[in-house]
Amino acid sequence: MAASPHVPYVDPESPVFRAHEGGKLGVHATKPLRDRDDLSLLYTPGVAEVSLAIAADPALSTRYTARGNTVAVISDGTAVLGLGDIGPLGAMPVMEGKAVLFKHFAGIDAIPVVMESGSVDELVEAIARIAPSFGGINLEDISAPRCFDIEEQLKERLDIPVFHDDQHGTAIVVLAGLMNAVAVLGRALADLRVVVSGAGAAGVAVTRLLQRAGVRDVVVCDSRGILVPARQDLTGHKSRLAASTNPRGLSGRLATALEGADVFVGVSGGTVPEHEVALMAPDAMVFALANPTPEVHPEVARRHAAIVATGRSDFPNQINNVLAFPGIFRGALDAGATQITEAMKLAAARAIADLVEEPTVDRIVPSVFQEGVAEAVAAAVRELAPTAGHRERPVLG
Amino acid sequence: MAASPHVPYVDPESPVFRAHEGGKLGVHATKPLRDRDDLSLLYTPGVAEVSLAIAADPALSTRYTARGNTVAVISDGTAVLGLGDIGPLGAMPVMEGKAVLFKHFAGIDAIPVVMESGSVDELVEAIARIAPSFGGINLEDISAPRCFDIEEQLKERLDIPVFHDDQHGTAIVVLAGLMNAVAVLGRALADLRVVVSGAGAAGVAVTRLLQRAGVRDVVVCDSRGILVPARQDLTGHKSRLAASTNPRGLSGRLATALEGADVFVGVSGGTVPEHEVALMAPDAMVFALANPTPEVHPEVARRHAAIVATGRSDFPNQINNVLAFPGIFRGALDAGATQITEAMKLAAARAIADLVEEPTVDRIVPSVFQEGVAEAVAAAVRELAPTAGHRERPVLG
Repeated sequence: MAASPHVPYVDPESPVFRAHEGGKLGVHATKPLRDRDDLSLLYTPGVAEVSLAIAADPALSTRYTARGNTVAVISDGTAVLGLGDIGPLGAMPVMEGKAVLFKHFAGIDAIPVVMESGSVDELVEAIARIAPSFGGINLEDISAPRCFDIEEQLKERLDIPVFHDDQHGTAIVVLAGLMNAVAVLGRALADLRVVVSGAGAAGVAVTRLLQRAGVRDVVVCDSRGILVPARQDLTGHKSRLAASTNPRGLSGRLATALEGADVFVGVSGGTVPEHEVALMAPDAMVFALANPTPEVHPEVARRHAAIVATGRSDFPNQINNVLAFPGIFRGALDAGATQITEAMKLAAARAIADLVEEPTVDRIVPSVFQEGVAEAVAAAVRELAPTAGHRERPVLG
Repeated sequence: MAASPHVPYVDPESPVFRAHEGGKLGVHATKPLRDRDDLSLLYTPGVAEVSLAIAADPALSTRYTARGNTVAVISDGTAVLGLGDIGPLGAMPVMEGKAVLFKHFAGIDAIPVVMESGSVDELVEAIARIAPSFGGINLEDISAPRCFDIEEQLKERLDIPVFHDDQHGTAIVVLAGLMNAVAVLGRALADLRVVVSGAGAAGVAVTRLLQRAGVRDVVVCDSRGILVPARQDLTGHKSRLAASTNPRGLSGRLATALEGADVFVGVSGGTVPEHEVALMAPDAMVFALANPTPEVHPEVARRHAAIVATGRSDFPNQINNVLAFPGIFRGALDAGATQITEAMKLAAARAIADLVEEPTVDRIVPSVFQEGVAEAVAAAVRELAPTAGHRERPVLG
């Protein structure tokens, strides 16, 4: 295990490598296999009766196979954490970790599926082909802008929930935090000026969900500055974002956007100097979510902002997707949802916000380990879930 | 749950449906998640260190993810048991059952993956794309002749074991049984006249493995009769089989092949009337493997044959793939095998045969539940497994 120039140092005795020895997931039978009688029920010849019943009525598959409680955690390893394109094998420990969280927080059996990367069409094709194995699909750590088209096409093609967590999980928890933040400060979402720094997966989804929740003034910045239709370098999703945000027609750098802004949401991985944070309006709210290094250190931000949130567990107000995705999929699976709608996302945010009994500047979201979060989120989304009822056609129809 | 004209009767209270309620498989964490410290080891930020190490040295993935003990059980549902093309959802209970067997007999974490069917290229493409998730691939219940090309192309493309169990699992256990059968009867493989009825997945693989084991006279029949080069209707794998079998140049129906034959291997699902079994040589061996209805009833066959084997557990000499595949994958995974070779298959057959201490006409293979079968098979194949050693390139190169 000696390190070579190309290999990071691996210490098999360190806590993190010991925690990963042999991986973090296992598969087990949920029914006893003790003798020939059990074998003839769980496998041939008995299984044939169940297979024929499902072939005739596909809706039975969620009852008589594990599929109804199974979610695939799918990545091509192109945008893993803050590490970038480290490939499918490198992504695997993250996907296993995510599967552990699905089980722990929502009792969901999650299967990590890492894929060789490729074009949007190639990934959509492969994922759609294996989709009958699962009750839902959690896309993870797929680079932008491919992630938008992949999710969109899969949603059109499949009748099981498809959810890109880097987009929507982040957006839901940001909105939950913002709901409580405005409550604490006596503000209203509709009156806020919001700056989103980062026009990747999370930035796009945060912007869209905040708009749906009633925020009217969102300005989005990428590394070159404010997205505005006059910019000649914008294509695709950035061009669409420019057209549907920035109502005051600002242009220039992030600092221009921050002047008088009420809310900063950082999902960029960049940095914001203190003097730019100081440009924000009184009672500002700063969500500096880059991990492990926030765009601005929370103690620095706190000098100029009333409420500060980060992605880290060692500061107050941790914006962590784990508050959202377990409950969202739990509710969707329980309802037999065919997709996860915008209404379900808004309801999830509201449910997360409501779990904080008395919000304060240092407590706008629940703790990750607070009891009952997934259950409350599941209950909220379940009611709104669209279902196909008794399906008469196979999954890919 | 009332039956409709298109839906077979489902009795939720029957033993087989109760055994399938909620499915037969679950996923669990193998490491504890108790608090924030555990979370930071199993997921962010700790996991990043492991991901980077694997990205730099892919060989570490078998040590630090569950991949090293994970096999995908993959089917497109086109040839499920004797039920035919019942689709991916219908196939799922069978694949879950197979996964239960992998765990029970070899401690392997098997993941059922059912796919929408398609062309050979489409299936190969999808399977190869998700292959980095697994340490091995067990193909199952894919119709012939597609199964041959799919397996062949995947073996060329991937450097993990790919094994179509309907072919090779069956062939290995047939060979194991035949090894003991000839020992009991004082015969030699090289002197036998063998008739294989069925030119699908199992028939092809049985023929090829028996030839490799030293059988020189194999005659293969399909539903139209003996495969012989003069037949104008043969293409693809049947044409290749005709060219490499049938050394005496027989032509005609199965009955012609059976005249004076020593061994009958039925993997066709057809039937053989008693008077045709009676045409076989003295001390004949009959492997009537169609399930649940053997080509000839074992009690009828026994009137004309010295040794009779079936696929059923309620008669002596059950030829069951479960004697082979758990140990074969156990050995292959433990060795880090890049493929399962012909030598490994022969060694597995020998190991299975040797587990019967004193073979008799009613005991040519071990019982499915005999202790130590998978371990013995694993030990035999492990020694012969080809490995890439310390891999310097990602799985798909």
